[in-house]
Amino acid sequence: MYPVITIGREFGSGGHDIGKAVAERLGVPFYDSAIMQQVAEQSGYAQEFINVHGEYTTGMDRWFSGSVFPMNYFGTPQDQIFSIQSRIIQDCAKKGSCVIVGRCADYILNRAGIETLNIFIHADKESRAARVLDREKDVPEDVEKFLERKDKGRRAYYRYYTDRIWGSYENYHLNLDSGFLGEENCVDLIVDIVKKLYQNP
Amino acid sequence: MYPVITIGREFGSGGHDIGKAVAERLGVPFYDSAIMQQVAEQSGYAQEFINVHGEYTTGMDRWFSGSVFPMNYFGTPQDQIFSIQSRIIQDCAKKGSCVIVGRCADYILNRAGIETLNIFIHADKESRAARVLDREKDVPEDVEKFLERKDKGRRAYYRYYTDRIWGSYENYHLNLDSGFLGEENCVDLIVDIVKKLYQNP
Repeated sequence: MYPVITIGREFGSGGHDIGKAVAERLGVPFYDSAIMQQVAEQSGYAQEFINVHGEYTTGMDRWFSGSVFPMNYFGTPQDQIFSIQSRIIQDCAKKGSCVIVGRCADYILNRAGIETLNIFIHADKESRAARVLDREKDVPEDVEKFLERKDKGRRAYYRYYTDRIWGSYENYHLNLDSGFLGEENCVDLIVDIVKKLYQNP
Repeated sequence: MYPVITIGREFGSGGHDIGKAVAERLGVPFYDSAIMQQVAEQSGYAQEFINVHGEYTTGMDRWFSGSVFPMNYFGTPQDQIFSIQSRIIQDCAKKGSCVIVGRCADYILNRAGIETLNIFIHADKESRAARVLDREKDVPEDVEKFLERKDKGRRAYYRYYTDRIWGSYENYHLNLDSGFLGEENCVDLIVDIVKKLYQNP
């Protein structure tokens, strides 16, 4: 049986699309927006709010605590979302092999004793800028600063909840530069190694 | 034509053997001890001295400057070795495709405008300890501390001469966990992607 595959990724590196293609090729579920939808249903927060606070630290989250946002036993809204999200991610993984993108899934599952194949996708700024300009509707003029801000938010979020360094090699089995290797090659490479390790181990 | 492949690696991760096998499979030269021998010939230092000071910062290098070791225009003995080593690495790369292990080759060649495929091999402490105990003759009792000391020396050396962070994903196209993936799978994976990218691009 194939493993649970977690994919961390720099913003605009194509990690989401690579994960989706890997899931399709292996015939296993792909969890991304499905997780956010469940979090929305269970937490009562709007999906747009969860899209941000389920993966990014904006720098305002702690500051807001107890002022604009209600602070309670469950911590900030971000903490509540993290807690619900963690449970949903574990439920998904317990159903069997799948691909989960972002949201500290590697840490959450490893802490819960679930073995995973952890992958991190990154790319040079030029490739990422090109992808973002191609895909996003509202990109501010300075794309590089936009990328930096997005990555900073993910890095801080990951650091806060896992106490690990985002993208640091010791937390991943594979770090791939999708800009250099190409998106399709990354998919092939992941599918090949998964089949090799898990189909005929 | 195949590229120049540089391989950085944690101590005991099998990066040396993986590099050697990749070179054999691709039919290109493998540079490791050959570089050290040339450095020895051109610098006058003993090969044992170069083995250490061409890749590790021991913490004593700066302290010794001008006291035990002669300090001159060319800096410390470590600086002299780095300078000669850099030139030899560039000469190797200019001859064509090859595999070069360690010694900041990624940084040296990129700064010289030579395109490379940069790989970093790492593994969990258990796999590395097992490999080291199997291979090395004089391993102190505490293998984990021995590994930590070796990696610390390489990390500091890399940091000092490149101002980059050793193993950090943005400097590599592939980071592979040889403990999880297996040494042979790492070789296959590298050979496959090199053939894909460079044989029929």
